[in-house]
Amino acid sequence: MPPAHPFDDDKLREECGIFGVVGVTDAANFVALGLHALQHRGQEAGGIVTYAQDTGFNSARRFGYVRDNFTSQSLMQTLPGSIGIGHVRYSTAGSKGQTAIRDVQPFFGEFSMGGAAIAHNGNITNADALRRELIERGSIFQSSSDSECIIHLMARSMGRSIPDRMEEALRKVEGAFSVVAMTRTKLIGVRDPLGVRPLVLGQIGDGWALASETCALDIIGADFVREIEPGEMVVITEKGVESHHPFRRAKPRFCIFEHVYFSRPDSILGGRSVYETRRQIGVELAREAPVAADLVCPVPDSGTPAAIGYAHESGIPYGMGIIRNQYMGRTFIEPTEQIRNMGVRLKLNVNRALIQGKRVILVDDSVVRGTTSRKIKEMILDAGAAEVHFRIASPPTAWPCFYGVDTPQREKLLAATMSEDEMREHLGVDSLKFISLDGLYRAVGEASGRNAVQPQYCDACFSGEYPVEPADQIEKGFRMKAAE
Amino acid sequence: MPPAHPFDDDKLREECGIFGVVGVTDAANFVALGLHALQHRGQEAGGIVTYAQDTGFNSARRFGYVRDNFTSQSLMQTLPGSIGIGHVRYSTAGSKGQTAIRDVQPFFGEFSMGGAAIAHNGNITNADALRRELIERGSIFQSSSDSECIIHLMARSMGRSIPDRMEEALRKVEGAFSVVAMTRTKLIGVRDPLGVRPLVLGQIGDGWALASETCALDIIGADFVREIEPGEMVVITEKGVESHHPFRRAKPRFCIFEHVYFSRPDSILGGRSVYETRRQIGVELAREAPVAADLVCPVPDSGTPAAIGYAHESGIPYGMGIIRNQYMGRTFIEPTEQIRNMGVRLKLNVNRALIQGKRVILVDDSVVRGTTSRKIKEMILDAGAAEVHFRIASPPTAWPCFYGVDTPQREKLLAATMSEDEMREHLGVDSLKFISLDGLYRAVGEASGRNAVQPQYCDACFSGEYPVEPADQIEKGFRMKAAE
Amino acid sequence: MPPAHPFDDDKLREECGIFGVVGVTDAANFVALGLHALQHRGQEAGGIVTYAQDTGFNSARRFGYVRDNFTSQSLMQTLPGSIGIGHVRYSTAGSKGQTAIRDVQPFFGEFSMGGAAIAHNGNITNADALRRELIERGSIFQSSSDSECIIHLMARSMGRSIPDRMEEALRKVEGAFSVVAMTRTKLIGVRDPLGVRPLVLGQIGDGWALASETCALDIIGADFVREIEPGEMVVITEKGVESHHPFRRAKPRFCIFEHVYFSRPDSILGGRSVYETRRQIGVELAREAPVAADLVCPVPDSGTPAAIGYAHESGIPYGMGIIRNQYMGRTFIEPTEQIRNMGVRLKLNVNRALIQGKRVILVDDSVVRGTTSRKIKEMILDAGAAEVHFRIASPPTAWPCFYGVDTPQREKLLAATMSEDEMREHLGVDSLKFISLDGLYRAVGEASGRNAVQPQYCDACFSGEYPVEPADQIEKGFRMKAAE
Amino acid sequence: MPPAHPFDDDKLREECGIFGVVGVTDAANFVALGLHALQHRGQEAGGIVTYAQDTGFNSARRFGYVRDNFTSQSLMQTLPGSIGIGHVRYSTAGSKGQTAIRDVQPFFGEFSMGGAAIAHNGNITNADALRRELIERGSIFQSSSDSECIIHLMARSMGRSIPDRMEEALRKVEGAFSVVAMTRTKLIGVRDPLGVRPLVLGQIGDGWALASETCALDIIGADFVREIEPGEMVVITEKGVESHHPFRRAKPRFCIFEHVYFSRPDSILGGRSVYETRRQIGVELAREAPVAADLVCPVPDSGTPAAIGYAHESGIPYGMGIIRNQYMGRTFIEPTEQIRNMGVRLKLNVNRALIQGKRVILVDDSVVRGTTSRKIKEMILDAGAAEVHFRIASPPTAWPCFYGVDTPQREKLLAATMSEDEMREHLGVDSLKFISLDGLYRAVGEASGRNAVQPQYCDACFSGEYPVEPADQIEKGFRMKAAE
Repeated sequence: MPPAHPFDDDKLREECGIFGVVGVTDAANFVALGLHALQHRGQEAGGIVTYAQDTGFNSARRFGYVRDNFTSQSLMQTLPGSIGIGHVRYSTAGSKGQTAIRDVQPFFGEFSMGGAAIAHNGNITNADALRRELIERGSIFQSSSDSECIIHLMARSMGRSIPDRMEEALRKVEGAFSVVAMTRTKLIGVRDPLGVRPLVLGQIGDGWALASETCALDIIGADFVREIEPGEMVVITEKGVESHHPFRRAKPRFCIFEHVYFSRPDSILGGRSVYETRRQIGVELAREAPVAADLVCPVPDSGTPAAIGYAHESGIPYGMGIIRNQYMGRTFIEPTEQIRNMGVRLKLNVNRALIQGKRVILVDDSVVRGTTSRKIKEMILDAGAAEVHFRIASPPTAWPCFYGVDTPQREKLLAATMSEDEMREHLGVDSLKFISLDGLYRAVGEASGRNAVQPQYCDACFSGEYPVEPADQIEKGFRMKAAE
Repeated sequence: MPPAHPFDDDKLREECGIFGVVGVTDAANFVALGLHALQHRGQEAGGIVTYAQDTGFNSARRFGYVRDNFTSQSLMQTLPGSIGIGHVRYSTAGSKGQTAIRDVQPFFGEFSMGGAAIAHNGNITNADALRRELIERGSIFQSSSDSECIIHLMARSMGRSIPDRMEEALRKVEGAFSVVAMTRTKLIGVRDPLGVRPLVLGQIGDGWALASETCALDIIGADFVREIEPGEMVVITEKGVESHHPFRRAKPRFCIFEHVYFSRPDSILGGRSVYETRRQIGVELAREAPVAADLVCPVPDSGTPAAIGYAHESGIPYGMGIIRNQYMGRTFIEPTEQIRNMGVRLKLNVNRALIQGKRVILVDDSVVRGTTSRKIKEMILDAGAAEVHFRIASPPTAWPCFYGVDTPQREKLLAATMSEDEMREHLGVDSLKFISLDGLYRAVGEASGRNAVQPQYCDACFSGEYPVEPADQIEKGFRMKAAE
Repeated sequence: MPPAHPFDDDKLREECGIFGVVGVTDAANFVALGLHALQHRGQEAGGIVTYAQDTGFNSARRFGYVRDNFTSQSLMQTLPGSIGIGHVRYSTAGSKGQTAIRDVQPFFGEFSMGGAAIAHNGNITNADALRRELIERGSIFQSSSDSECIIHLMARSMGRSIPDRMEEALRKVEGAFSVVAMTRTKLIGVRDPLGVRPLVLGQIGDGWALASETCALDIIGADFVREIEPGEMVVITEKGVESHHPFRRAKPRFCIFEHVYFSRPDSILGGRSVYETRRQIGVELAREAPVAADLVCPVPDSGTPAAIGYAHESGIPYGMGIIRNQYMGRTFIEPTEQIRNMGVRLKLNVNRALIQGKRVILVDDSVVRGTTSRKIKEMILDAGAAEVHFRIASPPTAWPCFYGVDTPQREKLLAATMSEDEMREHLGVDSLKFISLDGLYRAVGEASGRNAVQPQYCDACFSGEYPVEPADQIEKGFRMKAAE
Repeated sequence: MPPAHPFDDDKLREECGIFGVVGVTDAANFVALGLHALQHRGQEAGGIVTYAQDTGFNSARRFGYVRDNFTSQSLMQTLPGSIGIGHVRYSTAGSKGQTAIRDVQPFFGEFSMGGAAIAHNGNITNADALRRELIERGSIFQSSSDSECIIHLMARSMGRSIPDRMEEALRKVEGAFSVVAMTRTKLIGVRDPLGVRPLVLGQIGDGWALASETCALDIIGADFVREIEPGEMVVITEKGVESHHPFRRAKPRFCIFEHVYFSRPDSILGGRSVYETRRQIGVELAREAPVAADLVCPVPDSGTPAAIGYAHESGIPYGMGIIRNQYMGRTFIEPTEQIRNMGVRLKLNVNRALIQGKRVILVDDSVVRGTTSRKIKEMILDAGAAEVHFRIASPPTAWPCFYGVDTPQREKLLAATMSEDEMREHLGVDSLKFISLDGLYRAVGEASGRNAVQPQYCDACFSGEYPVEPADQIEKGFRMKAAE
């Protein structure tokens, strides 16, 4: 399966994108388009469920890209109906390479009052405990996914309607969840009380859509209506949108990394353009960490907006010093010995003529393991750069995320084991600077920076302050910051 | 098959990329990598031929991307040997959708002194006449490709060695050709006397490589040695490189559009960085066609370097007003009625927050049919732009290319039937400016512009001045400029 | 998917074959071989589950033939372990063409004491009622298969071990079932109290195997030990075989049609060679329904042993008047108008030279809808036969089977709506005779024929006497014989 | 690719089947059906060429079965037209496993008067010499097939029409050839002067068909008109059939092994039913080589008719002692150590109950290497047979065939190195008898046996008397009988 980003293996990765639509002809086509626009949130597999009176619930789940699977006329004809939901996913760290098709969402359950399908973005932090209890009581799990708990909790519920059962189920669930679900006639959207993962509402003609990001509304020509609120559940029929608030109210803690990297630059999060936020990060970074240089060069493609901002603020010319091959895909067979760093060269090539003899500022979005940063530095030096300065558009990533993001174990995170100076030395660059946490908060619009007492966002991957206790992880031996 | 560029159907397209290597272990892997780096020159199909003593000549030809075919261990094992050549191709205008696998190069011929395989980039302008004559004399053609003439002319030659036969064959051929060929032990490279298409020589360890562009040398870690000269034939064995000049000398006429669009920005053409040339085109364009505006925005991805140049020269901020979906591929099934311009939206989305209320300069590389330009203009206006100004990094494309580029028929070229002003009106933009032919020549380093008497490049697509008479086309009814 | 028998669409079809093995290296290979030998019992799909300590439970389920799926090295490597079970299936009448991969067995459940997989041959006659009740109580069904009830009943059981839970579950189940199941260390086999479907035990080295038929023991070189008894459960570990009898004892009623058609001629059922039984049916038929003729000709391949018996007993020469094409497969595109009866001709051709001018006795195993019999009669007459006499190796099939066989609805069965004489006229043959029910019983070794009071076999498809009330069918409107 | 016969690797194999049709709607469908009926003559690959005015010549060539490739609607739609030819092939001994798709016929050539496609059954014995000469003169071969010579000889011909060119070409060719060819409007059929390979003419409505065997006429519902005569060329248009005799007349020498094994039992060869001939071989064999026994058992499927004849003549009961698995296919992964002779068991199982304690006569069509005969003998003895007597329906196969049949090298043929008695000992059976050459001639209708001076058939594989000198083979070192 082709990776999305040139250095996928050295990035944090969002694990899911979700989409739903009701009140349109051939809903499956809209779902496919929406998922295509959300493909950056999960590229391993995708699934679509629809309902039509004649055929009942229909589903198709496939490994690979939406564009390669859900564009086949013969497949799409098996998904009739005017209501549908869909899901794209990465494998989670734990089960890499072992994902079975049965782990691909949406999940479906037949209840006595009818069927329901759900698609979940996020991670349930007490899933292990819930699963054990459900099995003890006779539930049979079909997947290894934490998300399947929700459907079993719904099956066990005494609630008379599916939305009632979903409320009851989600009240037992801890962690981060944005959920899109459907019955035969209702499209349902829910966000957890902290609103860690995004979910937006759009309108298209007489129909409605739910999506992880606004870019998925744009692609189908839907108007962006509003974000689903943290802790809100909406139940949408062809008649309109009903809003519920089934959970205890809490201060929102939206994932700040959605701004830094996960979301698409053309999406709008919390009323802010992601592109503009990233450009602003570059501006802040130029202020916090200036350096005398000849060229500001993005690490493509995710570093581009911050690099534009850095260049603009610093007055140093912006240029494409690294060119990305747009035909990436499967791994090539590496010719023996003679070639090194092939993995990177297949994806990137240095624009040698531009780099040569220059002092280069490389702007990247984050440093995770640091493996890619080293390779890029070498390519740039091989091409004859005079100096290499790394500027990173996020603070040091020192803690794993347990809320629906694929992160390496803590000890693999460069920033968990090294100081900024050690990292600079490890990477072998002339300077290395990360934006400060306060700078990042300013870039997302918090003029006075981070509220240390009650942070406005979830920034656990930088701060180690987890807004929801990762119960399953602690049971498995993870040690929280306080415990260090 | 996924298109390469977002608006592939409204671009001129290079028809081929060629690559060869000798003196390396497992040559096929190098050829695959080289072709991968040249994929932008041809995405419909690819082929590789190698030779090993045990197995003789081996070949594999496949539709689709190099990365999807030539990365399979089982396939690559069928291509042993230390010498090999390869080819990537687009279908030509004439046979679109009908290309058979037998049209996929390299072509192979068994002669009395042994076998040879050839891969051709360019177009033979007297191929129809040659083919008729060869058939009359008993040759059996296997493909509909003009390139196959070369191998039949070689078979008919009385030459004692394969290089001799190739010289004899190519002397009968008119038009544009860069050729890479191989025998059991020799790698051969040739460029036509005008040097219309590129061909470069690289060194890797004790081995040698030939490639359409330097970026294909970079990917295998080869050092760029020099360009093959117009009219030169090199015969390379493990011992070294022999140079011949079998053709009558002529003034070179390298294709100027390779600088504008075909070649990759990280390649070096005629000693100049393609990226830098394109940036310089933007600079020239800003000088020739300034306009008051708030944002310089590239049409991704090919307009980017010129946009950077325009922004730098004009002082107007550069920004990514259009975001490209990196997961393009097969066509989606379009939901009935409700959605328009889907083709474009699948590939691009407007960065609405950046565009809104702004006077936007859109920098694109060329206007062919104009269909895409109109759609982009609409997207930009829908997003609330105050003004839209198109700046085009090439002169008006008013004439078809007959030298190995896929162009629409003349009457489909917008610039063939409209004045610049009519085009502006047709596209519905506030202003539309093309770089002048002189400006383009300045950007490629000809300080005093185009030499009208003896142009330094082939610019027939702009000027209608064809350096080689397109004999087959004239026979089919094409009317040259003089004839109008 | 290629059909197994030339007239598949006009045959009763066994719905499943099951196989299990424990105590062998690479159990999956044995399971694949066993299923290959049982392919005639189900050709739509197959599945294998194994368990290995390192990898846990592994499974693969595929549409198509065992030989096409479970021979791939890469697939088989995903199925390690020394214990495994497998299943081949037809789709049931109801869901034809809609079978999802999730309907393909073995089914798997994770219980608090560990996982178990089961494969079921037969049909649960109270599955609808059980399913409704289980859903009401919170079970989530993944398939549309009646067999899935068993695993949910096990999940709900309070039993402390998996065999205990299976006993409890199967006591709630009505109908016909032969089951092969596995835990991490135990291979389990069960037959329903009437023993409607077959199940045999074999020994291979220190390991053990369970299979629907003895031919599956032969293929892996296992020795046939004995049949599992009606109502018996065996629990097999590497230490040996434990036998239980968890159900109330009942008089066995083995399916007599297994002798007539379902089982392979080289299998041994109830101590009798299937081939010999079929040959004996031909002998009985020759005694019951002699006719003056020149040739005894089998309808290939299933009519062959009875034809041999008929010829031997009658003294009329045996000959292959109908030749079967051994390369059957997908349906060909039928050339317009000009060709009729193509469906049959693709599979069979008349041996015209043998047939011409002869009085021919055609021996077939059964008449279901009669559509094929008509076509064959026409082919034989077209080839110039003087007379056509049908002799059928089973009594008229007048009732559907609800015990794991795919039968058309009653009104589609020729014998349900016509007398023997009407059938003869409908088929347009010179004579038509079915073996009597008593004759059939004699052929299977019951010297004095059928015991009308307490039949020795299940012969419901001939007699309409159902040994287990088909509760779900009655609820859906099926009328039993008594009710007519 | 699934083998056709259970012991394919130990059989002589016909290398090709050919078919053509003109004057029908959608000719490709008829060709596909005809090739399907001829699949036993070649199972590795198949190809079809058609011609339609709109699309010109169309072709498709595929590895695998006709039923798996030429039944796809999308493929068949690419083959429009009312005239078409096709070919099925085995790989030849030399290139086993290396066949490229370019070796798959029909071959096509574009001549100055238009295109032609040809399909060839047989083998050209002077192909190497012809090929060398053609290459010397500038022809480029695309395949490694001897048949390609014909199309190049046609291209070189000065003949004004395609039939004229074909005559001229075939006069230069030595060996065995039945050819079906087509132009835009003409269907052409030719047999070599000796008529070694079969070719028949049929009529279907107003159209005409040519086929290797009559069974291919039957499947499309065509009437058998007559055989093409040895040395005859027919040129068929929609108007009718023209007959030519371009070669010097010779005494026919039809391949006698077509009667023994290659042709389908339901075909008619030389006015005789193949089935009846084979049955008659059994009768002759019973007379020549009687033995006291309890059971006559065919080695399925090809030994069946002879076994029926043997049983009838000897009065010993006929029975199916060996049951063939009808789902053969790819090779299974053999479980380590525990299982032997798996290759055979996957395909056959002994009907133990029938065999046990009996003196068994096994009737097989031929003994080539003898490897399979040994395995079958072992299976039969393992099953408890008291005695095993082999009766072979052809004389000892002691010489390779060079006329279009895949035979092992001479030293691999059991009968080339052993006497009958040594073979009996080698196989370890109680007796082994082959039919005599005279007996075989009597069975094909030559009442007084073989004419030793001028044999009525080609029987080189038995007698070593080659009616056409195998020139290429002699050059490669083959020693004729005379030379021994």
